[in-house]
Amino acid sequence: MRQKLREVQIKLMRGLLDLVILQLLKAEPMHGYRIITSIRQNFGVYFGPSTIYPLLSALEEKGYIKSQWDVDNHRPRKVYSLKPDGHSLLNGTEESLNHICRKLTSIGLNRLNLNGNNNGILKRPKRLS
Amino acid sequence: MRQKLREVQIKLMRGLLDLVILQLLKAEPMHGYRIITSIRQNFGVYFGPSTIYPLLSALEEKGYIKSQWDVDNHRPRKVYSLKPDGHSLLNGTEESLNHICRKLTSIGLNRLNLNGNNNGILKRPKRLS
Repeated sequence: MRQKLREVQIKLMRGLLDLVILQLLKAEPMHGYRIITSIRQNFGVYFGPSTIYPLLSALEEKGYIKSQWDVDNHRPRKVYSLKPDGHSLLNGTEESLNHICRKLTSIGLNRLNLNGNNNGILKRPKRLS
Repeated sequence: MRQKLREVQIKLMRGLLDLVILQLLKAEPMHGYRIITSIRQNFGVYFGPSTIYPLLSALEEKGYIKSQWDVDNHRPRKVYSLKPDGHSLLNGTEESLNHICRKLTSIGLNRLNLNGNNNGILKRPKRLS
């Protein structure tokens, strides 16, 4: 079960990597290697360059982040930062995730707000009067 | 941006569908069509039979859920319910998701707990003394 949970954790993280990267870059601009170590440090899961760099390229291509060469360092490297569209996407994604998390919790608490004889027919949830 | 957010929401949900299905079945046993409508009702996203039934088969094969024919209905159908291993997986997955959500929030608040000159070298976070 421990191994299964680890797999689930990695699968979850993989699905949320875009969000995680945008959130990291919202905190401050970073180069790719720093993003990799930050993910490992914060989430306990390692995703290597072959996972992270293509995601960064895709996010840049879509206009959510931009990159700039940092030549002050002894070894020049690209530093990524969030663009306004990335901010908007991040806010929307966070809202979605929070909505999903809230719903997941309320399913457990409210037993779906459905009648037992509902048989799968879509109904509006009843409002409390 | 609205369209992009919708895409992100669907992508997020797709990554969390296993968890969502287990959570629904924890609330009560259900047949497949009811699961589909519950997801649409609770999360505002429609995933059809071609997405949901293969996931149910995979979860059953792995021993997380079981199915039983309900022959009381005029049209017999399979009703799925959570098995003990499914409970354990669900609890672990929820913990992982909560951990990820908490971390995502704390990244925004704590600006990563990293020094500006860290340059990507992995460090233990400092403890508050």
